[in-house]
Amino acid sequence: MDPGEGTRSVDRLKWWGWGEEGKSYPLDDRPNAWPFLNQILGLSGSERSPRLTLDQIKLRKSRADERLIIELQRIVGKENVSTETRERLVHSMGKGYQDLIRVRRGIVQSPPDIVVYPASEGQVATILECASQRDASVIPFGGGTSVVGGVEARPREEGGLLLSLDMTRMNRVLAMDPVSLTAKVESGIMGPDLEEKLNQAGYTLGHFPESFEYSTLGGWIAARAAGQKSTRYGKIEHMVEGLRLISPTGTIATRDVPASAAGPNLKQFLIGSEGIFGVLTEVTLRIHRYPDRIEHRGLLLRDFSSGIGVLREILQAGVNPPTLRLSDSPETRAYAALLRRPRKMTGRLKTRLGMWLMKRRGFSLQSSSLLIVGLEGSEAQVAEQRRIVLAKCREAGAFNLGRGAGEAWYRDRFELPYLRDVLLDRGVMVDTLETATTWRNLENLYLRVKEAIEEAIASMGVKPYVMCHVSHLYKDGASLYYTFLAKQVEGREMEQWREVKKASCQCILENGGTLSHHHGVGLEHAAWMEGEVGRKGKELISAVKSTLDPRGIMNPGKILGTTPEWRDP
Amino acid sequence: MDPGEGTRSVDRLKWWGWGEEGKSYPLDDRPNAWPFLNQILGLSGSERSPRLTLDQIKLRKSRADERLIIELQRIVGKENVSTETRERLVHSMGKGYQDLIRVRRGIVQSPPDIVVYPASEGQVATILECASQRDASVIPFGGGTSVVGGVEARPREEGGLLLSLDMTRMNRVLAMDPVSLTAKVESGIMGPDLEEKLNQAGYTLGHFPESFEYSTLGGWIAARAAGQKSTRYGKIEHMVEGLRLISPTGTIATRDVPASAAGPNLKQFLIGSEGIFGVLTEVTLRIHRYPDRIEHRGLLLRDFSSGIGVLREILQAGVNPPTLRLSDSPETRAYAALLRRPRKMTGRLKTRLGMWLMKRRGFSLQSSSLLIVGLEGSEAQVAEQRRIVLAKCREAGAFNLGRGAGEAWYRDRFELPYLRDVLLDRGVMVDTLETATTWRNLENLYLRVKEAIEEAIASMGVKPYVMCHVSHLYKDGASLYYTFLAKQVEGREMEQWREVKKASCQCILENGGTLSHHHGVGLEHAAWMEGEVGRKGKELISAVKSTLDPRGIMNPGKILGTTPEWRDP
Repeated sequence: MDPGEGTRSVDRLKWWGWGEEGKSYPLDDRPNAWPFLNQILGLSGSERSPRLTLDQIKLRKSRADERLIIELQRIVGKENVSTETRERLVHSMGKGYQDLIRVRRGIVQSPPDIVVYPASEGQVATILECASQRDASVIPFGGGTSVVGGVEARPREEGGLLLSLDMTRMNRVLAMDPVSLTAKVESGIMGPDLEEKLNQAGYTLGHFPESFEYSTLGGWIAARAAGQKSTRYGKIEHMVEGLRLISPTGTIATRDVPASAAGPNLKQFLIGSEGIFGVLTEVTLRIHRYPDRIEHRGLLLRDFSSGIGVLREILQAGVNPPTLRLSDSPETRAYAALLRRPRKMTGRLKTRLGMWLMKRRGFSLQSSSLLIVGLEGSEAQVAEQRRIVLAKCREAGAFNLGRGAGEAWYRDRFELPYLRDVLLDRGVMVDTLETATTWRNLENLYLRVKEAIEEAIASMGVKPYVMCHVSHLYKDGASLYYTFLAKQVEGREMEQWREVKKASCQCILENGGTLSHHHGVGLEHAAWMEGEVGRKGKELISAVKSTLDPRGIMNPGKILGTTPEWRDP
Repeated sequence: MDPGEGTRSVDRLKWWGWGEEGKSYPLDDRPNAWPFLNQILGLSGSERSPRLTLDQIKLRKSRADERLIIELQRIVGKENVSTETRERLVHSMGKGYQDLIRVRRGIVQSPPDIVVYPASEGQVATILECASQRDASVIPFGGGTSVVGGVEARPREEGGLLLSLDMTRMNRVLAMDPVSLTAKVESGIMGPDLEEKLNQAGYTLGHFPESFEYSTLGGWIAARAAGQKSTRYGKIEHMVEGLRLISPTGTIATRDVPASAAGPNLKQFLIGSEGIFGVLTEVTLRIHRYPDRIEHRGLLLRDFSSGIGVLREILQAGVNPPTLRLSDSPETRAYAALLRRPRKMTGRLKTRLGMWLMKRRGFSLQSSSLLIVGLEGSEAQVAEQRRIVLAKCREAGAFNLGRGAGEAWYRDRFELPYLRDVLLDRGVMVDTLETATTWRNLENLYLRVKEAIEEAIASMGVKPYVMCHVSHLYKDGASLYYTFLAKQVEGREMEQWREVKKASCQCILENGGTLSHHHGVGLEHAAWMEGEVGRKGKELISAVKSTLDPRGIMNPGKILGTTPEWRDP
């Protein structure tokens, strides 16, 4: 009953924070970081946030009886069923702010009773049958990186049996088609594993969410994710040619065709269904030849507003560089504060010279907007992207920071989530939220949501710091990605965060945004789904849920349920 | 009760064939057309197919009672309700082969009892309420050009009251947003009207189905249509940013945002729903700046197979010219036979010289494959498209027919449906069907479906002529568009056509295609929907139908129903 410890990907991962044990985001060689944070957040430097050790955590005992355990072992093999504490803990929730606050204190409302690792579609179907017979709720689990409560272990009814279905053994690339540029892949494959296998054959998927290192294909699709190169390669929903979903009452398979007019699009309806209808097992993905050239650079735009105009013009001119990421001035300032101390004298001189030039041109890291540009494709395509991007930036009077600034961002692009743990340790509330809207509405929405977050934070008596970037661009609009920080209000951490969530969701819906552009709904946005899709829209989703999952065992509460209001301890 | 005759678009249209009264596709100046047709189909030249005059047609009397009429008149105004014969006839069915065979003989199984023209979303909602109360079935009607039975007037139950909801008064462009490049448009607008309004403001939608002149935005979306420039601008589902649908139990509105991760994608589920859930009223469309340059040319590829390779390489090289349309050799031969006699001596000489050159290079209109290339965009974009397209064609040893061949196709691109009426008059069965698949499977599917159609036609003792083109290209695949001809088997016309339909649908599903890439499901493909989406997929759609339209009054039988087997008279 405690098999294979150390061999599964979850065993490498922190139960209390982001990513792998031993990895962090040290601020030691970033001399301006703490002074900056102390100043903007009004920290004394002595704030701390509690974190238990693993052996201090007491999970509710598993309710899985011997018969169920044996039945599941027969399906997937003895070593692929676990009731061990650490496994149950890791499978209890995702990596949202509320999750981290709870798990660090050992508050786990409803850990799964049992964790099962299927290795095939047939096993998934049999597990769902078994779960149906016992009215056990099933939580499909990939990398467990959801930041919206998408993998929260929550039974259909208080006290119900809970089964976590960890998909990471279903991690094979089943076929690659170099003619159609597609690959058939099992849904439990992790980002780096998938990308490596594609790269070896000369391809890329082009999907790099910030969670890339620890998230799975199935999770991406379940949540309609977007990666940092989405402006060129699209969101995950554009990458799926066909998929298979196993529901408790049967299988839905969409056809592997480039497009169809055969009725309502089931594929796009199942993408984003977050496990509430069933389990994604196999996916046919659209892949791309590995680019001949990838290059990055950084620029400074006079201000956020003119920068938005530049991005829009680039997209509407018909080029799609993979990455155009424009930070507002608070985010630009934070980036500057997080810069590493140059190791060598030449580096220090270069930095000084750059600062001097920048200043002379009327730019500053205090008021300008940082634009990270990623170009990718064949040499000719990159040249064309570069030509248009730089021309539009030049017209707007941008200051070119050069390749170094871009490459630094690219190198560290999966690192920022580690910083959250460092800040949490020091009593800082930090979280992100995101939305999307049309170009016309982008600045309006930007300002409104920023204000809403700031007001919500300030209302509890602490200083807010809200920053934002525009990324994931389309011809008709773009997404807004906010990071907000504040000193934790001790004893009211959950309430403090919830106030921000409520204010931002409300504000987004009232001002023409969408609840989420790529994090998904999960539990955290469920309360606002009626605002997003209307009463009839919710009824439509519920009707499908009732048909595919009449007992309601699949990932209860997500999308259609209520948003829990976790009490502060 | 006979209001406004002559003022509505349907009044200009043939009730018995394609397009406007008085327009045709004359074969007089195409000297090779009939000799070619006689030869390939084994016609004697004396074949004829009956066609009644309008006054010979006896429609079943309208069952609409005075109270209903008055109620509807109150909603939309007296002049916007009709029980007149011609209106009811035109609203009885679409423009498929079976439709034309029936309507020309005056066989109309269930004409609508009443035709209503709403002018606002509110009116639509009120009409649906009124229809619900009386259990009247409602057929949403745009241009009525469906070729798959999508607008067949068919009540939910034999003898039930039938209301045709003609949307063409809802034809306003409500707003244009030059910043986000979007336009909010009412769904009943006709193709040319919409495109003209966009053009005047400097924009284009880029959607040009063959039915363009007579079809509506709502119809395109209902059927998930594709236009001749889809390779650049996408199918209609890619053009919709947001939409509103009025169901008998309430409204669903999706948000006007470029992308979202807020659960299952309702928009893509409603696109392609063919009126079975409700009525599309308002749509936010993604529009494009009117291109600086549009140019066309024709080329000959050695054969269909090498041509397919060329198309794939062009698409996968990352350029998207709007049109790449590759005919197989039977279609190329038919095009050649349909060429007009050059009017001037110079034209004749040029043609002869071209033929001589072509022959010298080893090409012939008998065995080669015609490729129509359309390029479009800014000067730089067109130059880039041209560079890659011509380079790939050159590598494949293609013969350049020049601009004239391309421009001729472009000029006549909406004309071919008129030819169908001419052929019908002369006792020829002619229809089209289409599918899509991956590049890897394209040639296989092409051959299988071609054989299936040929066998089905030959099995009834007549000579088949089956031709095909590849168009609507994607990185991962393309569509196949078949046209099939044969001498009508007298007295068994419906059966003859049905055999082809059965054989082709079966073959498409067994060989990795989709039932339709852009015509839709309607009644004609409904029998095969389980093969397309599976039992669970159909249950999913039915569940939504039951929720939005519990009485089943919306466009009964489409998508989920049975395919009627019309008896030969």
